[in-house]
Amino acid sequence: MKDIVMTAQTTLANLDLTEAELTGGTLKVTSPIDGGLLAEVHETPVSEIEAIFARSKAAFQAWRTVPAPRRGELIRLLGEELREAKDDLGALVSWEAGKITSEGLGEVQEMIDICDFAVGLSRQLYGLTIASERPGHRMMETWHPAGPVGVISAFNFPVAVWSWNAALALVCGDTVIWKPSEKTPLTAMACQKIFERALARFGDAPEGLLQTLIGGAALGEALVASEDVPVVSATGSTRMGRAVAPIVAQRFGKCILELGGNNAMIVGPSADLEMAVRAIVFSAVGTAGQRCTTLRRLIVHNSIREELVSRLKKAYSGLPIGNPLAEGTLIGPLVDEASGAAMTAALKAAEAEGGTVFGGNRVTENVPAGVYMEPAIVEMPGQSDVVKTETFAPILYVMGYDDFDDAIAIQNDVPQGLSSCVFTLNMREAEQFLTAAGSDCGIANVNIGPSGAEIGGAFGGEKETGGGRESGSDAWKAYMRRQTNTVNYSAELPLAQGVKFDI
Amino acid sequence: MKDIVMTAQTTLANLDLTEAELTGGTLKVTSPIDGGLLAEVHETPVSEIEAIFARSKAAFQAWRTVPAPRRGELIRLLGEELREAKDDLGALVSWEAGKITSEGLGEVQEMIDICDFAVGLSRQLYGLTIASERPGHRMMETWHPAGPVGVISAFNFPVAVWSWNAALALVCGDTVIWKPSEKTPLTAMACQKIFERALARFGDAPEGLLQTLIGGAALGEALVASEDVPVVSATGSTRMGRAVAPIVAQRFGKCILELGGNNAMIVGPSADLEMAVRAIVFSAVGTAGQRCTTLRRLIVHNSIREELVSRLKKAYSGLPIGNPLAEGTLIGPLVDEASGAAMTAALKAAEAEGGTVFGGNRVTENVPAGVYMEPAIVEMPGQSDVVKTETFAPILYVMGYDDFDDAIAIQNDVPQGLSSCVFTLNMREAEQFLTAAGSDCGIANVNIGPSGAEIGGAFGGEKETGGGRESGSDAWKAYMRRQTNTVNYSAELPLAQGVKFDI
Amino acid sequence: MKDIVMTAQTTLANLDLTEAELTGGTLKVTSPIDGGLLAEVHETPVSEIEAIFARSKAAFQAWRTVPAPRRGELIRLLGEELREAKDDLGALVSWEAGKITSEGLGEVQEMIDICDFAVGLSRQLYGLTIASERPGHRMMETWHPAGPVGVISAFNFPVAVWSWNAALALVCGDTVIWKPSEKTPLTAMACQKIFERALARFGDAPEGLLQTLIGGAALGEALVASEDVPVVSATGSTRMGRAVAPIVAQRFGKCILELGGNNAMIVGPSADLEMAVRAIVFSAVGTAGQRCTTLRRLIVHNSIREELVSRLKKAYSGLPIGNPLAEGTLIGPLVDEASGAAMTAALKAAEAEGGTVFGGNRVTENVPAGVYMEPAIVEMPGQSDVVKTETFAPILYVMGYDDFDDAIAIQNDVPQGLSSCVFTLNMREAEQFLTAAGSDCGIANVNIGPSGAEIGGAFGGEKETGGGRESGSDAWKAYMRRQTNTVNYSAELPLAQGVKFDI
Amino acid sequence: MKDIVMTAQTTLANLDLTEAELTGGTLKVTSPIDGGLLAEVHETPVSEIEAIFARSKAAFQAWRTVPAPRRGELIRLLGEELREAKDDLGALVSWEAGKITSEGLGEVQEMIDICDFAVGLSRQLYGLTIASERPGHRMMETWHPAGPVGVISAFNFPVAVWSWNAALALVCGDTVIWKPSEKTPLTAMACQKIFERALARFGDAPEGLLQTLIGGAALGEALVASEDVPVVSATGSTRMGRAVAPIVAQRFGKCILELGGNNAMIVGPSADLEMAVRAIVFSAVGTAGQRCTTLRRLIVHNSIREELVSRLKKAYSGLPIGNPLAEGTLIGPLVDEASGAAMTAALKAAEAEGGTVFGGNRVTENVPAGVYMEPAIVEMPGQSDVVKTETFAPILYVMGYDDFDDAIAIQNDVPQGLSSCVFTLNMREAEQFLTAAGSDCGIANVNIGPSGAEIGGAFGGEKETGGGRESGSDAWKAYMRRQTNTVNYSAELPLAQGVKFDI
Repeated sequence: MKDIVMTAQTTLANLDLTEAELTGGTLKVTSPIDGGLLAEVHETPVSEIEAIFARSKAAFQAWRTVPAPRRGELIRLLGEELREAKDDLGALVSWEAGKITSEGLGEVQEMIDICDFAVGLSRQLYGLTIASERPGHRMMETWHPAGPVGVISAFNFPVAVWSWNAALALVCGDTVIWKPSEKTPLTAMACQKIFERALARFGDAPEGLLQTLIGGAALGEALVASEDVPVVSATGSTRMGRAVAPIVAQRFGKCILELGGNNAMIVGPSADLEMAVRAIVFSAVGTAGQRCTTLRRLIVHNSIREELVSRLKKAYSGLPIGNPLAEGTLIGPLVDEASGAAMTAALKAAEAEGGTVFGGNRVTENVPAGVYMEPAIVEMPGQSDVVKTETFAPILYVMGYDDFDDAIAIQNDVPQGLSSCVFTLNMREAEQFLTAAGSDCGIANVNIGPSGAEIGGAFGGEKETGGGRESGSDAWKAYMRRQTNTVNYSAELPLAQGVKFDI
Repeated sequence: MKDIVMTAQTTLANLDLTEAELTGGTLKVTSPIDGGLLAEVHETPVSEIEAIFARSKAAFQAWRTVPAPRRGELIRLLGEELREAKDDLGALVSWEAGKITSEGLGEVQEMIDICDFAVGLSRQLYGLTIASERPGHRMMETWHPAGPVGVISAFNFPVAVWSWNAALALVCGDTVIWKPSEKTPLTAMACQKIFERALARFGDAPEGLLQTLIGGAALGEALVASEDVPVVSATGSTRMGRAVAPIVAQRFGKCILELGGNNAMIVGPSADLEMAVRAIVFSAVGTAGQRCTTLRRLIVHNSIREELVSRLKKAYSGLPIGNPLAEGTLIGPLVDEASGAAMTAALKAAEAEGGTVFGGNRVTENVPAGVYMEPAIVEMPGQSDVVKTETFAPILYVMGYDDFDDAIAIQNDVPQGLSSCVFTLNMREAEQFLTAAGSDCGIANVNIGPSGAEIGGAFGGEKETGGGRESGSDAWKAYMRRQTNTVNYSAELPLAQGVKFDI
Repeated sequence: MKDIVMTAQTTLANLDLTEAELTGGTLKVTSPIDGGLLAEVHETPVSEIEAIFARSKAAFQAWRTVPAPRRGELIRLLGEELREAKDDLGALVSWEAGKITSEGLGEVQEMIDICDFAVGLSRQLYGLTIASERPGHRMMETWHPAGPVGVISAFNFPVAVWSWNAALALVCGDTVIWKPSEKTPLTAMACQKIFERALARFGDAPEGLLQTLIGGAALGEALVASEDVPVVSATGSTRMGRAVAPIVAQRFGKCILELGGNNAMIVGPSADLEMAVRAIVFSAVGTAGQRCTTLRRLIVHNSIREELVSRLKKAYSGLPIGNPLAEGTLIGPLVDEASGAAMTAALKAAEAEGGTVFGGNRVTENVPAGVYMEPAIVEMPGQSDVVKTETFAPILYVMGYDDFDDAIAIQNDVPQGLSSCVFTLNMREAEQFLTAAGSDCGIANVNIGPSGAEIGGAFGGEKETGGGRESGSDAWKAYMRRQTNTVNYSAELPLAQGVKFDI
Repeated sequence: MKDIVMTAQTTLANLDLTEAELTGGTLKVTSPIDGGLLAEVHETPVSEIEAIFARSKAAFQAWRTVPAPRRGELIRLLGEELREAKDDLGALVSWEAGKITSEGLGEVQEMIDICDFAVGLSRQLYGLTIASERPGHRMMETWHPAGPVGVISAFNFPVAVWSWNAALALVCGDTVIWKPSEKTPLTAMACQKIFERALARFGDAPEGLLQTLIGGAALGEALVASEDVPVVSATGSTRMGRAVAPIVAQRFGKCILELGGNNAMIVGPSADLEMAVRAIVFSAVGTAGQRCTTLRRLIVHNSIREELVSRLKKAYSGLPIGNPLAEGTLIGPLVDEASGAAMTAALKAAEAEGGTVFGGNRVTENVPAGVYMEPAIVEMPGQSDVVKTETFAPILYVMGYDDFDDAIAIQNDVPQGLSSCVFTLNMREAEQFLTAAGSDCGIANVNIGPSGAEIGGAFGGEKETGGGRESGSDAWKAYMRRQTNTVNYSAELPLAQGVKFDI
């Protein structure tokens, strides 16, 4: 695989990462593609972190008074730079996270989209003017910048998640401190470079708007604990969120949590099966099952169960597995050996709980030296423990149902609450799935899979998914503080609720 | 004070509280007015709490599918019943919390107002329809009921805070479990009765929409810890919030925290002093300084400091202190001996930190047997520790400033962030106070005091105040869960961000 | 029919209409029920109209500065009075407009609903705070009262339409001048009385908030032409709207037009026919086909056409026609002889254009002396001229289709654009009907008929329906004027768009 | 002036306008700078207009179903092309409309800004989801494209006004037919070219999205009258609007009118006079007084009137008048001789009505052969007829006041209602100016002049200004049609308002 490593170096160079930055450091970065060493980068010393926080705070003091549309101009320039760097950054995502080319590029496109969206937002950030009950009074609600925002991101969306947070936070007047996954420091360093190019064109921004923390858990812990960081946006496992949330809560900070998902699809008897098959395959095996929105549970009406499973098995059998940079590949590697082992263990547990496994073996021929796994379909007699647990790998559990209400109950009977969908042409089922008594997830779709959200909607989920929302709708409010203002321009002093208090 | 006790009994009877409910229980309820025993009520056994949660959950299953405008009808009836019961409930607030008559009635008026507001809201609960990037797709965002809502309220707004939460929660499709302060169970029991009258007129509501937990800390702790209660709205001290928030966070519940305030007023050189004096006195001594929005810090331009303090002292000297039910009284009792002791201790500390105290002595003549304190004005050389601490009593710390930026810095330099205000006729000062670089509080007013918010705005604060919002604007969203929906009605299956994945 | 007239007198008396008001006037009011004389009321002299406008303007000067939540209190009281008067006012609607009892009461319920909604709105009337591009600047958008609002209403919703406009206009700070239909002055006079009862309880409102113009076209014309009336809300025929709109436009007033409808239902092959039949019958014959949202066109998939028509004919055959006040009656009279004649003429034209008519004959036995008509079903070979014309009577034209796109094209191929619906269980059809390429109407429903809108949505339609919106959503904005504010609190004077102009 | 004409040719060539397009036509285009001939362009034959409408309609059928974010991409590309063409297009604005360089560039910047804003908007176009009163029902409000939009623009903002309309209309799914002023066809032709460059990069747009009508009144009349054009956005004189509005109203089209302004500034005794002077001079003489938002009336507190006028006269005396393309020029030419004559006539009338005129003479030395006028200050004894009339030239009428309420009354006592402002440091005056009883204009500012609005707010005015709104806030709704949807997914058919109708 020597050629490929050489290409990685070209990509890194194109992204302005220097020899000095890529060598001699203590953090080894390897590619999931072949386990090859990509770089040895320098970690942010824990001793510097207070200075980093202080710089962020100082930058915030200045940035918060820069008019929001001007802040939007920085993000517009960032969007332009991302367009310019799209191919290289997309390739680096493939190198570092193992995604296939199209997904690597798609992730960068998502960054570009959120920049466009945030630019428009920069002239909005709408609060309200409100009718006051008192004569000579005016009420309004305004949204002010919150302060430095800590962004903790995971390996599987190494750059998009940062951009969702950063584009909004920066337009909102906040500064950003980014702790990327230890597994993907290179894409983070590349983003920092791209951001700095935008900054250089922008001109007069305060120093320290974006700072990246390269290294391990101690950095993340410091970020979470710091009183200087009023907002922490953390993407990762439920376990991580359960550790982070109470610490931030105790210091009255705000969390935006994007944690585990255990996403299901209900397939009704009227479903367009051709579409369902395509949606299931993409949702279940795309990114090798390592999306937070990956489809993990299939709840099929018993009348079509056999047929659907049979078509899925056929589709699974033909999926090209291998080097994600190679044309035509649809399934790349898992991120590391631990992930492979977890998949194998889950399949074993599933069998123990009554499941019948199709696929799921390790692929070793005609693939590079990474962890390549056949995606698995597991027919389950019921929703047992392993099904309720998120395994970050391409395992699809299949369960049957007879009654639509039961299907919804199965969908909801897991601790996670991120994404969900139904395939049906029956409008009653489609609508019911979206009601208060339908899916309990933050995302609920009809006739599309659980993954691949657009940036215009709010992204995030309920229950163990953590309750945070990012991206579109009014998700930007999480990056700001709300202020209710009443202005008395009269010469009288009436009290609300008609209270009398005459001294 | 025998006559007064008799009247309390009449009030209780008018509110349908029965002899059996008021006697023989383990929780003694005394009036701050004279320390007299009002009742001995029965505590909710901790052993029953799981059944209460289960009842709430079951009621929620039904209530969430009742159309919101129909739910609004219940709140409209509640508003009618509250109008009917206003005088009695207001009087009971006075009896149990020690408020003067006008404030007791004002609190009930606030309940009525929020009901009217919530009725209108019941036909709104607006989500969004959103432009989708994919042909043949429709996006929308809907808000669904969250589940049982735990409401923990404090003695100082024994009924209004409940109504803010309950009116919104019920219209939003949630059920309510209320843990009132141990000091004020009677007003809570009266509200439960009033609510049941509304229920009876309403008709077909599920059993268990509102349940009240009478008793001590163990009940609150159970409420906070329960996975069955996805939303906890807690009003009280910062200490309480700091205990509650991590527990709820760890189980991925949502908190609406309304904690301590340390509210300031800046008085600029151009201020209308006549108005300022009236606003200060009401804000600082109203409810005997026991509002979360009580004015505690006065930051006065040095050019007018002497005059203002002198006018305040004069005003303070004439304030009628005594039985809050007596006509003309403006200052009633503190809630208990501990509060009186805390006030005395704070004044001592203030003196130790360089302050000069005016007033602050206990009043024992011509008042009933409660804790009646002269309100205190303390001139401070700077913002020392005691000033940064919320003491729930009528103490007003006065500090001077020369430069408006300094005044804002002093205002912001406390851990709490609830309410704030400026008195000025200078539009530049007024506006600056409301900017991103102005007050860091959730409420920032101009030419009105920090207390007495209208229900149309969102109420709550930042930093140690906890970040929650209640009442108006889109505070209702905290009682619901957000769902992002994408519906594909085409026969195609395009992926977002232009990702290609053709099997 | 003597008894019934006596009851009408009781109803009028219950509504506080006095002998003096009901007799001796020049405007004869007869009941569509039996043609009997209900009253001879006094017309507003045209000579007084300038004084009425002046009074409205003066009242507006005061009312606009009354805080909106206080204005909401007036509407809350109006809602209470309407609840009190519901039975009588509903009965009077039956007497004067010929509606069946349930519809008369439903109309009053709609008035009550809009009052509840408007009360909530009175603490909202939300404008925006907006991010400014200039440092030291604040932007916001506020909504201010517009001025006197002219309301022109039609006989068929003699009171609800007024209340939709008046409740919102009054909460918005406007005053109201009402010109009801010449055919229904009594219900208008009763509303004025009810409103005055609310006013009396309210207290300090300016004189002239609501004024009613009793009489003919000249009054309406004066209202439309007056520069003193910035907003004219007119409900009636397209012909009327075509006359009104240019006059108001020329003086730069704003129109809210609710004109003719020609509402269709598409019934797809998957439709729940049982539901469809019930919906069709109610929508087509309710209010004897005299709703603006009455179903007039049925576009049925050819595969089910015969069956559906046959079931409809069966249902039509059993519909109880007669005195609308009698229990069980579902079809009351047309409003007058002209309406009966128009119906007969339309049926003749339909036959000439190839249609086959079922029903449509005048009923003379066992009914009072009004114009009672059998509702008609007309099977048409295509959408000919008569089908494209609104005839205000219970005629339902039936047309077939094979392709859903064609069905939509037929639905849209009329000049009117008020309401529309589809009955289908196919989610693709349901969704498509609601897209940009679907129905071109202001209202588009799925699996409910075109009539019977809820007050929470905006009500109104496109094309010849006039484009106005009333009732819910942000329809209130039509009663206000928008103001964009930029406030510079800095000592600098930057220009927008970076323009330089240094003197 | 030969050199300058040569440069104009270069500019035209840079903008891709060909020799063939610029010569041989029947419409002579001259530059206000020197009256020199810029081009002879070809007029759109009236005979072609029906085909143009048909093409627009056909394009609309396709464009309306292109997803809005994709439509936004076209506008993003347009923004890029405008950035590229900024210098040339800005220069052409100067050539054709006579603006100084900075203003020409500022106008293009405004185009760029609105493109950025519209791109963000393309993922919003938010409607509402609404709580329904019926079980098993869902309500929402969606916004759909309206159809071809006619844009009629005036010479003084020859390109920005088009872009405000076109960027929003195109993102909203509409097509555009543009009728620019006869005086400025070249900038329109250049915009069409720039737009086509964006289109070429975009790819698959339908043919006919933007069409430009070059020529005279007959084209505009056809546009206004056409049933194919549901929305007409017309910017120009009140006289024009009064002709256009009734024609569009009669066919139930929608108008967005941006007509005359007669904008005032109130200067209070506390005003920062240094700032006021600068704001007045820019607002009154910028664009040679030919902005719709030009300051025309100065209402000064009598205590500072003399001083302010004296400072203004001094500032006016030093203003550089001349070739707008020359560096340092602040006042360029009026657009034509008629404008010069109108200015002279107005000054004469003002003198006749008691005014004292300062300046206002024609400048003939050291300027090119255009109509160059000294700006005029006219001290008036009161608000006479000439003051109430908009003269499109740099005349500033000055009036005194003693009482702030009077100042507001003077401000409001003109038929126009576009823009207004107050200079004051007194917060009570500032606030009062923005209330329901303050300015009656669509724009009301504090401490900035009436001109130079940001694109984030809604732009437009009341009364004879026509009531339209463009640009920011929810002005986009004027380019769409609103649809209220109720979807019944239950198997029941309840009626709203509890109406019973059982067949």
